[in-house]
Amino acid sequence: MASSSEPPTTRDAFLGGRLMLRQPAQGYRAGTDPVLLAAAVPAEAGQSVLDLGCGVGTALFCLGVRVPGLHLAGLELQAAYAALARDNAAQNGLEAQIHEGDLAAMPAELKARNFSHVIANPPFFAAGRGKSPEDPGRATGRREEAPLAEWVTEGARRLAPGGHLTMILRAERLAELLVAASGRLGSPVVQPLTSREGRAAERVIVRLRKGGRGGLKLLAPVILHAGPKHEQDRDSFTNEVAAVLRDAAPLHGMA
Amino acid sequence: MASSSEPPTTRDAFLGGRLMLRQPAQGYRAGTDPVLLAAAVPAEAGQSVLDLGCGVGTALFCLGVRVPGLHLAGLELQAAYAALARDNAAQNGLEAQIHEGDLAAMPAELKARNFSHVIANPPFFAAGRGKSPEDPGRATGRREEAPLAEWVTEGARRLAPGGHLTMILRAERLAELLVAASGRLGSPVVQPLTSREGRAAERVIVRLRKGGRGGLKLLAPVILHAGPKHEQDRDSFTNEVAAVLRDAAPLHGMA
Repeated sequence: MASSSEPPTTRDAFLGGRLMLRQPAQGYRAGTDPVLLAAAVPAEAGQSVLDLGCGVGTALFCLGVRVPGLHLAGLELQAAYAALARDNAAQNGLEAQIHEGDLAAMPAELKARNFSHVIANPPFFAAGRGKSPEDPGRATGRREEAPLAEWVTEGARRLAPGGHLTMILRAERLAELLVAASGRLGSPVVQPLTSREGRAAERVIVRLRKGGRGGLKLLAPVILHAGPKHEQDRDSFTNEVAAVLRDAAPLHGMA
Repeated sequence: MASSSEPPTTRDAFLGGRLMLRQPAQGYRAGTDPVLLAAAVPAEAGQSVLDLGCGVGTALFCLGVRVPGLHLAGLELQAAYAALARDNAAQNGLEAQIHEGDLAAMPAELKARNFSHVIANPPFFAAGRGKSPEDPGRATGRREEAPLAEWVTEGARRLAPGGHLTMILRAERLAELLVAASGRLGSPVVQPLTSREGRAAERVIVRLRKGGRGGLKLLAPVILHAGPKHEQDRDSFTNEVAAVLRDAAPLHGMA
């Protein structure tokens, strides 16, 4: 039985079992978003990656499994999640430096470095919006701690020249993101994610380049679920998304 | 034969012949963009519409034909196009006030009014980019006269509170548009337009609301051409787009 200081966790399979992650049984739990984010990062062996707000390491380690030979680093505000991320790296034979700390007060060790890639799955709701979940871990993972502009600014600061920031966020925040990036990062690539064909996008994955001056590229949407209705949770993914979630495939058009 | 002061024109059918428009045989000629723009405007009888850079009036009159009872106004920099727009209105039994003038120095009559809707199909290339066409009319229609931010600023100024600016532009300029609109117009709705299924969007139609504070809505793309390749110019449109171009249907999801 779990003690009161160590809340119960579960051990879950990602990427068809290539990655096994321990995460809290309650609170923020990784769904498809971090896996899709990792699939969109055009990283190559030898490059470095920083995951801002890495949680238990889902996106970072999905990327590490898909692209061997990366230098992985994560920043996580909550000690319990950072500890799980360190344990998850070890259990999966991945090397990763997990730093505990705040986006707005980045640890000196991270401040001294720059990265080929910065990735982030920032909290779900804008400050003051949405329902406040009961669990404090879930609350931090789901509500806004720092405004989106701060994620972009801090991400941009940690990028090497020509490096890429890749984020997944609700589609409704795309304008806010592009405005925040303006003058800092350019050449945006936008990948809409849609639950069903013909629907408005629920999520977007956006990649921005440090020093980029090109126009925006708006890709064809990735459709998550096949068929007109949600019938079975496990088996309704489209082939493209199933390949990402179960076979560690990259997202066509992004990576 | 046309005299040298009156260059040759053609008379072309739009909306399945519901609209007949005279336009220069050479120079900027209306394609599908202004027709799709008009199909995306959620205008209702009794409302007013201003078309910035109306050319011979294609978008403005397509909207006037689809939604009877609108108060139509246009602003056009080039005298020859403004004259054709006036003639086109008369020939099609539409009432419209066409003003000759510059976006940056709006005629006093327009400055004194505000509108339920402002629409624009701004020039194609960013300043200094792209090839310079030989024909001066084409050059003005295709190259940047005013920066995109000026179209947005002047459009926003002419809107009544709660009014909508609807623009069609190259997808690569979406970030530039959203940055220009930031703080002036909100609640963006983005309609990607794609030549073929699965391709990146070439165009976007964007609607912004004066006083809007909502998040961005990213719609499923409208696919222009059916089938994997471009085989026949006339007959390859998808049903949705054919309904817009030939039957004056509104664009599902926008209007």
